[in-house]
Amino acid sequence: MPQISHLAEHMPTSAIRMLNPFAEKAKADGVKVYHLNIGAPDIKSPQCAIDAIRNYQFDHLSYSNSIGSPELRRALLDKYYKSVGVDISLEDIIVTVAGSEALDFFFQITTNFGGEVIVFEPYYCNYSAIASKFGVKLAGIHTDIKDGFRLPPVSEIEKHITPRTSAILISNPSNPTGTLFSKEEMLQIADICRKHDLFFGCDEVYREFCYTDDPHFSVMDIPDFDRYAIMLDSVSKRFNLCGARIGCVISRNKEVMSLALKLAQARLCPPVLGQVATLGALDAPASYFEEVRKEYIARRNFTVNALNKIPGVYSPMPNGAFYTVAELPVDNAADFCKWLLTDFRLNGETLMLTPAAPFYINEEKGVKQVRIAYVLEIPELEKAMEVLAKALDIYNKRK
Amino acid sequence: MPQISHLAEHMPTSAIRMLNPFAEKAKADGVKVYHLNIGAPDIKSPQCAIDAIRNYQFDHLSYSNSIGSPELRRALLDKYYKSVGVDISLEDIIVTVAGSEALDFFFQITTNFGGEVIVFEPYYCNYSAIASKFGVKLAGIHTDIKDGFRLPPVSEIEKHITPRTSAILISNPSNPTGTLFSKEEMLQIADICRKHDLFFGCDEVYREFCYTDDPHFSVMDIPDFDRYAIMLDSVSKRFNLCGARIGCVISRNKEVMSLALKLAQARLCPPVLGQVATLGALDAPASYFEEVRKEYIARRNFTVNALNKIPGVYSPMPNGAFYTVAELPVDNAADFCKWLLTDFRLNGETLMLTPAAPFYINEEKGVKQVRIAYVLEIPELEKAMEVLAKALDIYNKRK
Repeated sequence: MPQISHLAEHMPTSAIRMLNPFAEKAKADGVKVYHLNIGAPDIKSPQCAIDAIRNYQFDHLSYSNSIGSPELRRALLDKYYKSVGVDISLEDIIVTVAGSEALDFFFQITTNFGGEVIVFEPYYCNYSAIASKFGVKLAGIHTDIKDGFRLPPVSEIEKHITPRTSAILISNPSNPTGTLFSKEEMLQIADICRKHDLFFGCDEVYREFCYTDDPHFSVMDIPDFDRYAIMLDSVSKRFNLCGARIGCVISRNKEVMSLALKLAQARLCPPVLGQVATLGALDAPASYFEEVRKEYIARRNFTVNALNKIPGVYSPMPNGAFYTVAELPVDNAADFCKWLLTDFRLNGETLMLTPAAPFYINEEKGVKQVRIAYVLEIPELEKAMEVLAKALDIYNKRK
Repeated sequence: MPQISHLAEHMPTSAIRMLNPFAEKAKADGVKVYHLNIGAPDIKSPQCAIDAIRNYQFDHLSYSNSIGSPELRRALLDKYYKSVGVDISLEDIIVTVAGSEALDFFFQITTNFGGEVIVFEPYYCNYSAIASKFGVKLAGIHTDIKDGFRLPPVSEIEKHITPRTSAILISNPSNPTGTLFSKEEMLQIADICRKHDLFFGCDEVYREFCYTDDPHFSVMDIPDFDRYAIMLDSVSKRFNLCGARIGCVISRNKEVMSLALKLAQARLCPPVLGQVATLGALDAPASYFEEVRKEYIARRNFTVNALNKIPGVYSPMPNGAFYTVAELPVDNAADFCKWLLTDFRLNGETLMLTPAAPFYINEEKGVKQVRIAYVLEIPELEKAMEVLAKALDIYNKRK
């Protein structure tokens, strides 16, 4: 019999999606499930994105350029990056199949098979799935819920650098913690990268979701850092176009972009209809982001306050993205999340959360934690928090 | 300075696209370029695909299932695969980001880093780009233009199997040669796979483009072969939806599909608008394919006959796809292809072809050959062949 590759053992099952069958079953039984498990917001796309698709004229759908259509790349530069103060040129942008492919490119460009990339745990769990595809090992540096998941001191980070380390990868704001890393923290990482010849990859797909008065500090804003900086981006969250599958990889390093071009050519082109929707979305007025941000601040405030009112639950107050990681008064949050779907009902309703353990290299460290995506309207979040409080009470009495 | 990965050396530049800058320059100078270099047909998509996009109602574009929307997978099964006699079940289909990603999955599932996959050269040159991403080496078994690129005897194929060989990969009908492999040839490869425990990957994206009376024989049609067969498919060519970026990987091997699911989850979902267009396209009447096929037969007959009338040019008569590989009376076809774009004009027109050398492991074997995609209407092909004849005449006198 033919044998499938070792990837089957190395590749984790998606933490975000592994409870799906139980949720499907609950819904098939007529149970209402509050989905706080996945970053799929309920907020409308900009009307101009919807119109772009409705008005798109085609009689056959050809390939676009491998690096994205010239119109889209130009519009990303002129209408988006310039407006948020990211100072780049047209040749620094390659359009990818969403942030997912931008991450593929990042690992393939920076790291050899058997190499290592430093991440700060808890980290976006798909990083480990993607890294494993290319034989890359993640070295996870711990950040603690009690410190609001701030970065550890430089000396602690440097301990994890080996001769096989090629890059540091962060998401800012962070998925899953919602932590917004400051300019000082970004410059600190940059110094480490300069000292140890490491690339600095920054996943900035939540750039528009920052809830402080300071502007977001991009990896592209670091001075004299062109050789090191690689930005990974996506329109999925920014314009509520998750299904469009359009992102980009951005770097001023010519070698990086030359290999990114080859990788882009090997898969012919990014989705053309998604490019059309994105081109339309880029005409969204500034008020679009402002309204979305206001809405998320209200949702965050409500959710985090409600969480901390539940006995034994702790969540820091995150300053970005639309996630928070909370510690629950349970021995194993994954068991609890499954039990919510299979056993618990409050007036015919239950809740879906993502166990946070798979966001850690050493899963034990996150065993009591969950990631919560506050992507529902506040009245729904209210009911979801009520379900959670009641469920924890019953779960712990049950034992 | 940080160092980019070894992939930069291993990954070939796309043979199909490397002449693009010269073509862009010619067009900027006002020259009309006949594009016979890329399989981007000028034929209309089914009207039902266009209508599906125009009528698609959404207020935000969510993720679909990682394996594709349930509606699309069901429709692929019921409306397409059943109708062409490919006998599979719903759980045997995972929707991918076009045939390109289906190939990614194939290499990742079947072959470890450092492993080998057998292909028959000339082969679709992106196979080597994709294989290199995963540290996979292609072992190319030669097929000859003089034999119409038929497969060599079993003994010759077996010579290339090593302990690191994990799979055989073919495209049927073949890109770039247009060769349609017969049931007997498919069964022969299957026997080799059984004997040596190899997966048999078959890229069937040109299935609808067969020009003999025999039905296309799919890898999924091979009896008692469930563990070995993996089909890679795409709607790009079938429905002239290249830009939709929708394909699929099909196998009855549960282990294969279980790893394919993990790979699918790691990139969240295939493009949603492309799925909508494809779902629409699946309502195309049988007459759609018949008309397309009739058109391609006429184009093929014209092109191949015209090629063979040019002194020193030889092309076999292919029975599938919309390509042919022709040998030209030049020392180096790549130089000639470049010269066409940079130096040659006939009444302000020229021609773009793809040098065939990169479709060979040993590029020397294809150094005099080009791949021609007969994807224009016959009056355009007539002019293109006239340009080619004149260009060859002048090119050879020039020396």
